[in-house]
Amino acid sequence: MKALVFDGKRLALANVPAPRRRAGEALVRVRLAGICSTDIEIVRGYMSFRGIPGHEFVGTVESSPAARLVGTRVVGEINVPCGRCAMCRAGLGKHCAARTVLGISGRNGAFAEYLSLPLENLHPVPAGLSDEEAAFAELVAAACEFPERVAFRRADRVLVLGDGRLAAMVAQALAPRSPRLAVLGRNAAKLSVLRRLGLRTLGPRVPKTLARSQDIVIECTGSPGGLPLAARLVKPRGTIVLKSTFHGAVEWNPAPLVVDEITVVGSRCGPFETALSLLARGTVRALPFLSAVYPIERWEAAFREARRPGAFKVLMRMG
Amino acid sequence: MKALVFDGKRLALANVPAPRRRAGEALVRVRLAGICSTDIEIVRGYMSFRGIPGHEFVGTVESSPAARLVGTRVVGEINVPCGRCAMCRAGLGKHCAARTVLGISGRNGAFAEYLSLPLENLHPVPAGLSDEEAAFAELVAAACEFPERVAFRRADRVLVLGDGRLAAMVAQALAPRSPRLAVLGRNAAKLSVLRRLGLRTLGPRVPKTLARSQDIVIECTGSPGGLPLAARLVKPRGTIVLKSTFHGAVEWNPAPLVVDEITVVGSRCGPFETALSLLARGTVRALPFLSAVYPIERWEAAFREARRPGAFKVLMRMG
Repeated sequence: MKALVFDGKRLALANVPAPRRRAGEALVRVRLAGICSTDIEIVRGYMSFRGIPGHEFVGTVESSPAARLVGTRVVGEINVPCGRCAMCRAGLGKHCAARTVLGISGRNGAFAEYLSLPLENLHPVPAGLSDEEAAFAELVAAACEFPERVAFRRADRVLVLGDGRLAAMVAQALAPRSPRLAVLGRNAAKLSVLRRLGLRTLGPRVPKTLARSQDIVIECTGSPGGLPLAARLVKPRGTIVLKSTFHGAVEWNPAPLVVDEITVVGSRCGPFETALSLLARGTVRALPFLSAVYPIERWEAAFREARRPGAFKVLMRMG
Repeated sequence: MKALVFDGKRLALANVPAPRRRAGEALVRVRLAGICSTDIEIVRGYMSFRGIPGHEFVGTVESSPAARLVGTRVVGEINVPCGRCAMCRAGLGKHCAARTVLGISGRNGAFAEYLSLPLENLHPVPAGLSDEEAAFAELVAAACEFPERVAFRRADRVLVLGDGRLAAMVAQALAPRSPRLAVLGRNAAKLSVLRRLGLRTLGPRVPKTLARSQDIVIECTGSPGGLPLAARLVKPRGTIVLKSTFHGAVEWNPAPLVVDEITVVGSRCGPFETALSLLARGTVRALPFLSAVYPIERWEAAFREARRPGAFKVLMRMG
């Protein structure tokens, strides 16, 4: 099958054997796969992964131990836990120390014609969603992780920091329950897309009146400056939700967290059921944040576009 | 009166007018005052404070709008809030943006024969406590701030990071409710003092098996390495309580907070009532952590001793 393979130095389109389906897993023919900043970090050699990257996808079940799933359009959760350790028994399989992660750790990913995932990782895509929309499921799920871990009150001033695709999904997912939500970003063109969806935006300059004003700040900038800025904008005793990872270090004195008694909640992958339902109901709109779809053969152009500061999500078509 | 005055460049013993008692405030004759790392930062010029530093004290009420308080031995809360803003109305006066802070911000402090504080900041010292023990009240209060904000279960693995005086107070305050608590420090002599009080200690080397093992890590190191180390030792979905501030920056990538979905809870000043009661009941012992008492005239030796890595708490006698 065709696949993008990273050998530790460079990414290349290669012809490799299709994955053999493991016990309890389904073989999925990938239709579309999304490029995430983690993929860009992998391809830059910033992570230890070797093999086929890619963890955002929509595909069709090709073969499966559950026969009635064959032919079904699915998206999939990326963490494959051991199922036996204390984390797994506590229902926190995504934190299993022995887990593999699709296209990120110990398991080939979605930049290929086929991938293999356990049945319990797969979620059928509602009929009303296009492939392009469904390919956002993993991203939207990440945007839905934290509300259950942070107490949101309707009167809270909520600020989403960042104007990229994750910020866009977070803002849309939260807007119905947080009428005072605003998005603070740097890129005027990106902010205008958010405004057209009815979201309140701030920036590119940070208004001075914003200092220490927010009950909850959700850090989605993907840059080292995000956390220090969030700590300046949140109220004493407020909460920062930390969503974004990046390469490199923050140089920062965390004293404001102590002095202002701020709580920081780290947050990663979230619930696919919620994500698919938000997409199906139109609460979260994906297509305004789709920058381009490239055939897998044009992967170099796809990655170039994904790295462009003005770009939102870039997909690759595998078929 | 005698007082230590910081002019922005150096600290000096001077003869200055005693503070005039403001409306609603009591004049307190200081008996003992403790040197805290914040005082050392002030004297190094790392903070913007000018005037008389010092915020840990025990004293006797000299004059007061409430006559029956005169002659009473008291300790005092250091934040003097405006009483009218939203933070104050929410009962969070210690976060009032217009507050003054004894010996730290906008208000002369305790390295003097007299200080002035609002009546509501003062707490009578139980008769069974010596002056030396009572002088630890502010520190012990800080050690009691967070338990109400963090869910502790008896089965939790709790690690106190650091072996200084704050770590010692935190460990003692928590030990009765956290039977699996341990203290990880670097200084063998300090750790042995903790062990003699029945606390479990680890270090100076960090055991490898400690990685990702703790439900709650309480960071009391007062050094830039504390937060990154805490993030390595806490379990996924665990909690770091951040207590210590320091000068300088951490150079660190906060990705572990996101990937392991860690919660960080910043924590500062705490309840004096709890602190006095823990000291009076002997749950928290202060005297093993008293390194020396100097007369105010020997303030240079006192500060030198307070900066010595092996030292715990240093007090100055004002009378």
